[in-house]
Amino acid sequence: MTLTVGVIGAGRIGKIHVDNLRGMSQVRVKSVSDVAVDHLEEWAKEKQIEVLTTNYQDLLTDPEINAVFICSPTTTHATLIKEAAAAGKHIFCEKPVSFSVEETEEALAAVKKAGVKLQVGFNRRFDPNFRKIRELVQNGEIGTPHILRITSRDPQPPGIDYIKTSGGLFMDMAIHDFDMARYIMGSEVVEVFANGAVLVDPAIGEAGDIDTAIISLKFANGALGVIDNSRRAAYGYDQRLEVFGNIGAAQADNNRANTVEISTAQHVSKEKPLFFFLERYTQAYIDEVNEFITAILKNKEVICSGFDGLQAERIAKAAKLSLETGAPVQLPSATPSAVIY
Amino acid sequence: MTLTVGVIGAGRIGKIHVDNLRGMSQVRVKSVSDVAVDHLEEWAKEKQIEVLTTNYQDLLTDPEINAVFICSPTTTHATLIKEAAAAGKHIFCEKPVSFSVEETEEALAAVKKAGVKLQVGFNRRFDPNFRKIRELVQNGEIGTPHILRITSRDPQPPGIDYIKTSGGLFMDMAIHDFDMARYIMGSEVVEVFANGAVLVDPAIGEAGDIDTAIISLKFANGALGVIDNSRRAAYGYDQRLEVFGNIGAAQADNNRANTVEISTAQHVSKEKPLFFFLERYTQAYIDEVNEFITAILKNKEVICSGFDGLQAERIAKAAKLSLETGAPVQLPSATPSAVIY
Amino acid sequence: MTLTVGVIGAGRIGKIHVDNLRGMSQVRVKSVSDVAVDHLEEWAKEKQIEVLTTNYQDLLTDPEINAVFICSPTTTHATLIKEAAAAGKHIFCEKPVSFSVEETEEALAAVKKAGVKLQVGFNRRFDPNFRKIRELVQNGEIGTPHILRITSRDPQPPGIDYIKTSGGLFMDMAIHDFDMARYIMGSEVVEVFANGAVLVDPAIGEAGDIDTAIISLKFANGALGVIDNSRRAAYGYDQRLEVFGNIGAAQADNNRANTVEISTAQHVSKEKPLFFFLERYTQAYIDEVNEFITAILKNKEVICSGFDGLQAERIAKAAKLSLETGAPVQLPSATPSAVIY
Amino acid sequence: MTLTVGVIGAGRIGKIHVDNLRGMSQVRVKSVSDVAVDHLEEWAKEKQIEVLTTNYQDLLTDPEINAVFICSPTTTHATLIKEAAAAGKHIFCEKPVSFSVEETEEALAAVKKAGVKLQVGFNRRFDPNFRKIRELVQNGEIGTPHILRITSRDPQPPGIDYIKTSGGLFMDMAIHDFDMARYIMGSEVVEVFANGAVLVDPAIGEAGDIDTAIISLKFANGALGVIDNSRRAAYGYDQRLEVFGNIGAAQADNNRANTVEISTAQHVSKEKPLFFFLERYTQAYIDEVNEFITAILKNKEVICSGFDGLQAERIAKAAKLSLETGAPVQLPSATPSAVIY
Repeated sequence: MTLTVGVIGAGRIGKIHVDNLRGMSQVRVKSVSDVAVDHLEEWAKEKQIEVLTTNYQDLLTDPEINAVFICSPTTTHATLIKEAAAAGKHIFCEKPVSFSVEETEEALAAVKKAGVKLQVGFNRRFDPNFRKIRELVQNGEIGTPHILRITSRDPQPPGIDYIKTSGGLFMDMAIHDFDMARYIMGSEVVEVFANGAVLVDPAIGEAGDIDTAIISLKFANGALGVIDNSRRAAYGYDQRLEVFGNIGAAQADNNRANTVEISTAQHVSKEKPLFFFLERYTQAYIDEVNEFITAILKNKEVICSGFDGLQAERIAKAAKLSLETGAPVQLPSATPSAVIY
Repeated sequence: MTLTVGVIGAGRIGKIHVDNLRGMSQVRVKSVSDVAVDHLEEWAKEKQIEVLTTNYQDLLTDPEINAVFICSPTTTHATLIKEAAAAGKHIFCEKPVSFSVEETEEALAAVKKAGVKLQVGFNRRFDPNFRKIRELVQNGEIGTPHILRITSRDPQPPGIDYIKTSGGLFMDMAIHDFDMARYIMGSEVVEVFANGAVLVDPAIGEAGDIDTAIISLKFANGALGVIDNSRRAAYGYDQRLEVFGNIGAAQADNNRANTVEISTAQHVSKEKPLFFFLERYTQAYIDEVNEFITAILKNKEVICSGFDGLQAERIAKAAKLSLETGAPVQLPSATPSAVIY
Repeated sequence: MTLTVGVIGAGRIGKIHVDNLRGMSQVRVKSVSDVAVDHLEEWAKEKQIEVLTTNYQDLLTDPEINAVFICSPTTTHATLIKEAAAAGKHIFCEKPVSFSVEETEEALAAVKKAGVKLQVGFNRRFDPNFRKIRELVQNGEIGTPHILRITSRDPQPPGIDYIKTSGGLFMDMAIHDFDMARYIMGSEVVEVFANGAVLVDPAIGEAGDIDTAIISLKFANGALGVIDNSRRAAYGYDQRLEVFGNIGAAQADNNRANTVEISTAQHVSKEKPLFFFLERYTQAYIDEVNEFITAILKNKEVICSGFDGLQAERIAKAAKLSLETGAPVQLPSATPSAVIY
Repeated sequence: MTLTVGVIGAGRIGKIHVDNLRGMSQVRVKSVSDVAVDHLEEWAKEKQIEVLTTNYQDLLTDPEINAVFICSPTTTHATLIKEAAAAGKHIFCEKPVSFSVEETEEALAAVKKAGVKLQVGFNRRFDPNFRKIRELVQNGEIGTPHILRITSRDPQPPGIDYIKTSGGLFMDMAIHDFDMARYIMGSEVVEVFANGAVLVDPAIGEAGDIDTAIISLKFANGALGVIDNSRRAAYGYDQRLEVFGNIGAAQADNNRANTVEISTAQHVSKEKPLFFFLERYTQAYIDEVNEFITAILKNKEVICSGFDGLQAERIAKAAKLSLETGAPVQLPSATPSAVIY
């Protein structure tokens, strides 16, 4: 059986999904829409895209298309989800679902009503290192989790224009870590306390954002957690995670381009971490798409649901409020439907 | 020139200091006092201690004695410091100086007035790993520090009786980490937010303490920091530290008894971290005493002063208050005299 | 421009090449031949192979086909190379070129006469770890090489039937290491001394082969080298290499499926090496095909030539002779055309 | 009970033994002899040496002295052993016992006749890394050993004058590795093939020695081994060892002064190996003396016997002969008394 797919938004991440989808024998990438398409014509031809359009409605009204990938700016996500759901399309949506918990809830309601599948693009859930850690936790190999530590630092900040519309560090960058926290711990976050600073670039502060943060978490199961973020690590993309439990601990280190160690009169050195998300999460981007397609074809639960998207947004909102008020912020305990293991 | 030393309190740490002092050719360990000495007679003979007494005044009134090591319970420290200072003895005092900032301030005033040296027993400052990191920071090799991360976990909790009189996790255990934070960052802590939990042993909670903590810090220089603590790490004493700056990062891993790696059909494994502080900080205990003696003989500044002891206590108090109130707690910025670089 | 390719021999490695070739937009995999094809029909259909035949001549006579991949048994390689060269096809041939230096020389002469390209399948040259080491050596970052150490151990021996026709450990397995030795050192091997033993499985000995070896090498540039081989490493495929020079050393460690480290009361453990060549050299298999296609399209030198194949065979022969005679065996110094940097 | 000790030869290693012996409460270092003593007077006073003499006979005739440490040049060892044994003294002798297998055999016969203990100074047997590996092998944790790999490289060559009287690289430097090979494998070496080269310094070649070597070994139990040596590793003292068996492998890495890892825009780096034997084997030097003293006090077997010294010399001789003849050299299988486990 073949699944026909359309992609809305052909920026960097949209193009990656096209490549990964084309590598799957059960998938036909038929259509791509974007607000402007002239610059995409050559690319679309090379990728054998059949329909290239400025009107995303062309995808939603195409009865051949089974699923759409929403890779347009965040402000369009909720509307597109609602329309795609109404059109009966399965949906893969990049993170975050929206900048507003209410909008996200509405979008999820539309998905539920339509009975289509929605997967949110928290690609790191598919990273082999973090998957292994989740597996260890689930299998009880470290016992009851007590402490979670996430280090998540970008190699360089985005442009100031991007910063201004990004929703801020918590919603744009740390949201991946908030999702990872829930995913690894198998428990909801019930309290957030955030410290933030502008240490990387004053222009980020002038744009109303921070570039450095440490976020303390409390989980429903009683465990504690902490995330540290920076918009610029001189040595590259730093993506580490550690979970400490009553019978052991597991930690994931960065990935490197090779295993070579060089010893000289000065020091013993090895490669830096892989540069950024495209290099580090190459396999994760392939696997997240693969598993979304598989979830549709075999009618299974997606690994990263709309609810997961919603919960990460709630934590991001709480972190922002904590930063603004200088006080910890409580989140409601998850309802039974929120049990994530 | 030879320095004559007396040791007040011959428990585990007092005996270690005796051994390390005896290894120094410029030092004569003449006298030891403890509340009871019968059980110490054989030990004292073997160590060639000339005076073994239940009265610490015998040490303070002995004109031959140049310096005393205060290794008795914390509740006695401040009084002993004041008396020893009045007697003109140089003082090495185990941490913490006291459970009360006021008492500590009084003790420091007495030391200042007497013009004697006071070194506080923050042994970790002398650990080769942490020293190297401080050196890198001071030399600017990681640039301006942005983020500090300390992991400090014991292999097993002390007995409940000890817990009850310990001053609590922050004053008893994390105080080392508070000192390390100031030492590494070269900047005072100005805000503390502490999360705590009882996850290791309910009896610790019943004794009014916590056994697991994550403590967020803000520094006077604008940097952020975080400490995570547990009273029980299944795999042994976990003492790691990382500082992240604008041009690089430095991290210290645990020490192990050997470098052997074993590969089998199951996995690739290596030794656990060295068991506890006696194993991990063997060299640090030697070096802290060595440098105290050197500071006296060469009339140099001690590496870990009474003011350092006071500041760590203030952070511990603030952490406790934060835990009790559920809110961050501000500390006064350090006075000029507090500049620690 | 598109290159049309045929594959002779659709066993495990032939199929891998088909997959990797199909991932290249400039390549059309038109034809596949094998001695029997019934079991291949479904596979060929899925892979969109246009011609599936039992007669490899169908590929050589097809004017559309620009290049052939020879993935049939070693005993057929030399003949196929000669016929393919005569038909004007570029050739990718799996290692070894043949079991006979003379046959290989004849095949190379035919290639030279025809003016086609021939690349030999020493896939490890394309491994990111070993490439990095070669690059370091070439750039002088370790200075003049003095010592080369290669560890090359398989996770499990092949079947005894395979062993019997494999040409023996040196020709079948260590030949990769002989090629790597020349590639890394940029100098020819001039003397070989081999120790061998049957320690893994007596049946290997009964089949006339060894399963464990240590091979000492001397290079034309005066450096020394050593290779150790085993047919069975309990912990998986062990592929390490170290080169030691007058200003430094570089060593390549194994690759693992993830970076997770687990600490428990027993030990600190990590993943075993990736299981075998398919897992370890996934990227190398892609890159070797990529670079062969590029060499044709851009008319560049191939990275692993027929001469390289010949030299590795000569070393394998010398190693076998050394094992049989119990004495070191000299190889002729390479002619000027053999300079490999 | 106290043991009274005399030290013959107060060069670098003699002085280290004095320090380590003085750290033991059961030992009194009474006497030191050397060919000249004027420059030693201050040192001897500081170390509380009671007798400082140019006549080693003063030590052998002193009835108080129970044991002597022979730390004089190798050419004097055999004679001193014989005389000390005749005087009924227990003997610790630096390696090698002599440059002549016959002389060594005579010395061992004298020791046997006198019934005193003789320990040879193969300090590496006491290194925590290598001890752990031996323990793993003995406990069967890697199964039957198949392959042994030793890397042993000095940070810098000794002076040419020393080279000339050193007995050559095999007798002076690799002899430690020959002993380690027997110790780890628990089996005698039965064949040696040595390649050698002058790559570090032509002056070493002019002095009749080599500075780089790869030595292939066969063991009585059928296993194979290899040692690689260099007189100069730019990055410091390189002392690694790996043993590969049928159910696993164990490898010992170098030791470093701290565990700090530094990440910058250039690379990720850590400390070089500890500089040379004094830094790397500090603990081993303490332990070898400790265990010698314990062997005397408790009348136990020494860990490194005269026979061990003899066997290592035999291998060194065989390696030299192999290098000279360009052929492998057989050693007689060990007699039953040679069983070393």
